Amino acid sequence: MRSSPGPFSSSSSSSSSSSSSSSSSSCDAPSSCFCGSHWGRKPRSGASWLQSSGRMMQYSPCPVAERSHWDATLRVPTGDFHAVLRDDEAALDWLSALRRVGVVHLKGAGPEPGAVARLAERIGYLRLTFYGPTWQVQDKPLANNVAYTSGKISLHTDYPALHAAPGVQFLHCISSAEEGGESEMVDGFHAAERLRRDDPEAFGTLASVQVDFTDMGTDYCDFLLQAKKSVIEVDAEGRVLRINFNNATRDSVLDLPVDRVQPFYRALRAFVDVLSRPENTVTYGLAPGDVLTFDNWRLLHSRRPYRSRPGQPRHLEGVYLDWDEVMSRLRILRQSVRGNA
Amino acid sequence: MRSSPGPFSSSSSSSSSSSSSSSSSSCDAPSSCFCGSHWGRKPRSGASWLQSSGRMMQYSPCPVAERSHWDATLRVPTGDFHAVLRDDEAALDWLSALRRVGVVHLKGAGPEPGAVARLAERIGYLRLTFYGPTWQVQDKPLANNVAYTSGKISLHTDYPALHAAPGVQFLHCISSAEEGGESEMVDGFHAAERLRRDDPEAFGTLASVQVDFTDMGTDYCDFLLQAKKSVIEVDAEGRVLRINFNNATRDSVLDLPVDRVQPFYRALRAFVDVLSRPENTVTYGLAPGDVLTFDNWRLLHSRRPYRSRPGQPRHLEGVYLDWDEVMSRLRILRQSVRGNA
Repeated sequence: MRSSPGPFSSSSSSSSSSSSSSSSSSCDAPSSCFCGSHWGRKPRSGASWLQSSGRMMQYSPCPVAERSHWDATLRVPTGDFHAVLRDDEAALDWLSALRRVGVVHLKGAGPEPGAVARLAERIGYLRLTFYGPTWQVQDKPLANNVAYTSGKISLHTDYPALHAAPGVQFLHCISSAEEGGESEMVDGFHAAERLRRDDPEAFGTLASVQVDFTDMGTDYCDFLLQAKKSVIEVDAEGRVLRINFNNATRDSVLDLPVDRVQPFYRALRAFVDVLSRPENTVTYGLAPGDVLTFDNWRLLHSRRPYRSRPGQPRHLEGVYLDWDEVMSRLRILRQSVRGNA
Repeated sequence: MRSSPGPFSSSSSSSSSSSSSSSSSSCDAPSSCFCGSHWGRKPRSGASWLQSSGRMMQYSPCPVAERSHWDATLRVPTGDFHAVLRDDEAALDWLSALRRVGVVHLKGAGPEPGAVARLAERIGYLRLTFYGPTWQVQDKPLANNVAYTSGKISLHTDYPALHAAPGVQFLHCISSAEEGGESEMVDGFHAAERLRRDDPEAFGTLASVQVDFTDMGTDYCDFLLQAKKSVIEVDAEGRVLRINFNNATRDSVLDLPVDRVQPFYRALRAFVDVLSRPENTVTYGLAPGDVLTFDNWRLLHSRRPYRSRPGQPRHLEGVYLDWDEVMSRLRILRQSVRGNA
């Protein structure tokens, strides 16, 4: 993974990416802004109601606004773990890039557990799930999840078995593998727009057909989850809102009319082909102290099989948050950093 | 509020309620079942895959399935607080009625705080929000929410300023008012179907126009929330999924094209008129030890102004959960209680 030339800068050579971004955006504000940015301006008159009105008339909380899509040429935005905890401007840069690009690589957290919880508290609070407040990605006996093995994990989004899948995920590397364990990530919004352009029938199928996801077992407590999701979730205007795709939890039964089964598998194959293109894939490895923060409604990520060092199992600690809480912190940081200017 | 003739039984004399219920349901299973009930059956053959296949082909996790709509004639299902904690069958009856009817009145919790957290743990875990893990509904100085006053609260659903509004709410009465404080509740799904039948244009407006909800302040931590929601949220087939309506957090700015403003207000007025009809409203009062458990995606509730007893302020403790977790517990209880029969 290439390192960024400057903190939180990112770029994509894919010009159609930005076009697909703007085409998928409903935000009338300048593309440099993010949802809620208009909170920050100085009143131009004493009429605070008109001012707030002006704010609202430009403000779009639409979750697909102000995204910049990317491909393999992405330079992943980077930041310093302690800086984002300590400094509001660094935190604002972090969360703005997380929103815009969908992934930010924080460095310098050290190898001690607890870093992801501290980042969650910086924002507000973490989201508890059936896998606990934070979760330990290690090779475990009697694993209740493929993540808790040393095997390969194919490209996926986390937790589609929850109707409300977590919006944001942080992964902190506490101990890396001796061999393997590298990850790949793909911008699911970019891939979905490519599919829409190149195979609109497949896009329409994945945006309309609902498939079952299931997850059962015992961790924080016992659970038995079922959800129906379209793999590409779009809003009433057809804008991509979320990617819901995880073959490890896609149900063994495909609950579709028989005449939809082959079109669904054909469309899923077409989407996986787009996701798997080298031109769309960023490969990265995490070193102890690195924290990958990313948009779980947008990014797909995978893991290669690995072998741990003798006596030192590979260990990542993870946590989930939701976009409501992250956007709330983003708006507050914007106010404090921009000084209402 | 009339008490139920038997535990967890409920009824509605509104025959069109059941018709609107079935018309809004996509569940092919018998109306007496609930989503996931088919987990429970004994294999009819050794072919477990076919059996699970049979389960899946009948199973619909659709959140609008197997609801029975109601009006003022509802006999609110009741249960015993300690029984649902102790006994799986009582817990199954509780959650099945919560799912089907949208409200269950648990009694006998006593006046000590902590009851709502114990109920949440019985299911799995509570949902933390900016108002804290649990929240104390009292008349507070410098209140950051209209709920934290002694004033009237009009019919509303909780927390539409979160894109992911809490699915389920528990309210435990620790100390009641000397005068006033009674609440009303309305089945928002029943009211929405009435509006669809009597004023389809208004229904269509509220199902398509998105309005802003906002909430800002400091409680568990500082927050600044913005969300766009349709007041009546429907799925791709037009089935009502959620009601999002809270005038206390509806934004001061209506971010709509000018030609949609008057149609929106007309439609909102028409919906509020349906919600406010005595024939649709159930009035109730909570005594110390009562816990009202209800579907926050479906029910609207209100509070009359009150005056506390001298030296004993009215006090309710509340908690939020989500339907994913409640449905998970419901499926597990079904398996344990029905003994796979």
